[in-house]
Amino acid sequence: MKILTTIEELQEVRKEISSSVGFIPTMGALHDGHISLIKKARAENDIVIVSIFVNPTQFLPGEDLDKYPRRDEADKKICQMCKVDYLFMPKITTMYEKEEVLIKAPNRSYVLEGETRPGHFDGVLQVVLKLFNLVKPTNAYFGKKDAQQLSLIIQMVKNLFLDINIIACDIVRESDGLAMSSRNVYLTPEQRSEALKISKSLRKAGELVGKKQLNVETIKATMKEVMSGLDIEYIAVVNRNFEELTQVELSNTIILVVARFGNTRLLDNLWL
Amino acid sequence: MKILTTIEELQEVRKEISSSVGFIPTMGALHDGHISLIKKARAENDIVIVSIFVNPTQFLPGEDLDKYPRRDEADKKICQMCKVDYLFMPKITTMYEKEEVLIKAPNRSYVLEGETRPGHFDGVLQVVLKLFNLVKPTNAYFGKKDAQQLSLIIQMVKNLFLDINIIACDIVRESDGLAMSSRNVYLTPEQRSEALKISKSLRKAGELVGKKQLNVETIKATMKEVMSGLDIEYIAVVNRNFEELTQVELSNTIILVVARFGNTRLLDNLWL
Repeated sequence: MKILTTIEELQEVRKEISSSVGFIPTMGALHDGHISLIKKARAENDIVIVSIFVNPTQFLPGEDLDKYPRRDEADKKICQMCKVDYLFMPKITTMYEKEEVLIKAPNRSYVLEGETRPGHFDGVLQVVLKLFNLVKPTNAYFGKKDAQQLSLIIQMVKNLFLDINIIACDIVRESDGLAMSSRNVYLTPEQRSEALKISKSLRKAGELVGKKQLNVETIKATMKEVMSGLDIEYIAVVNRNFEELTQVELSNTIILVVARFGNTRLLDNLWL
Repeated sequence: MKILTTIEELQEVRKEISSSVGFIPTMGALHDGHISLIKKARAENDIVIVSIFVNPTQFLPGEDLDKYPRRDEADKKICQMCKVDYLFMPKITTMYEKEEVLIKAPNRSYVLEGETRPGHFDGVLQVVLKLFNLVKPTNAYFGKKDAQQLSLIIQMVKNLFLDINIIACDIVRESDGLAMSSRNVYLTPEQRSEALKISKSLRKAGELVGKKQLNVETIKATMKEVMSGLDIEYIAVVNRNFEELTQVELSNTIILVVARFGNTRLLDNLWL
């Protein structure tokens, strides 16, 4: 595995590749969720490129940019073990200039995650577009956990006519059901145990839908019951375009939950 | 020459090209200015692609979008004569969806042209980025006449790490000095004759600089004298980053003029 840090190195490497490239953009602190993306990319492409870049433009003032977990050495080892070909780890000044042409996500980026984090998705799309243009992947791998992010990246690829396949990958969970997240390390043991109610509420929602209970209010009420005692930020039932539904549409619905544990926000969701 | 109208046609064609591609994005109503770009592209690339698309997102409400000159049949003949390989003429609905990921030009897009046309350059960058992603040119050709546009496109290419050479081409003029523009057709014979004062004022400015007169106020005063009687919107002396100067910097200065003739705005400039 070769570690690249400059634009020039990456461009030079890319120029020599004529076969398929699988790309996994990350903010590091790699966990089994990332590893599942890397393994899928390894199986489906000749060359695998991973980027680790804690992107400042997607953090709002007061968010956890400085505190965001950084584990470069462990991450390098993980990538090496997963047979990554190239690991791109640029500096902030390598990726950004003082003045920038910006990307603006559409209005639906201001609901749900975007309501509490206005502008967050603009920053996500900007860094993803930059990385896409540098890496020129055949296939790019994203987890379904960041569902709204995934939906906006798919829209950007469509709007800007990017020649890239976006591969949506299933959420990877701890054995007890908690969705993997780099932010799980922030949890106290008590919070960690309480957090299980989130995935439990989604399993319950899935069961209800399985029994043909498609009414969104009923589903939400049951989920709230399961999550009693949690600081729920939102439960949302949306279609693939992130429009809220009153009735579940089979095979076009995502149920999303965010709950807060102190300053830590945990996301989870279920794609029906 | 093959005319393409859909994304699929263009992508299919592009996939088969492995040699150099020269690209000239236009809004049609082709004149000798465009022809000079096409000829340069023809001389420097294996394949030449021209696009004709009157891009709605760069027109502000109340501007001349509906009135903008359209001469498709004449334009096709010109491209054929210039040995263009592919002419891309998409519909608006081919290029845009209802909801869009948008491009936002940096702050300096709101001075000069952007002051009277706020948001204009956002639309320019958006369509240029879309076209770049579709055409994937080796070299893209732009006239120096739209100096601010050119400067912002160069910045976008840099910020977004696009692998495209932007070729800046000299302004083409009528034999009497008037800069070529699709909007010149709007001029009455009297306006047409008065408009000569614009290029004359720039020649005069060039002479002053040749005589080591680098004081911007003096140069502007002289230009105003030459353009007496004209409705001058602005005269600006800027560096390549479009920061206003008080003293001409040799080989890093652009002198810009905009004058109004009824509803028609004429631009001209001199790159020192």
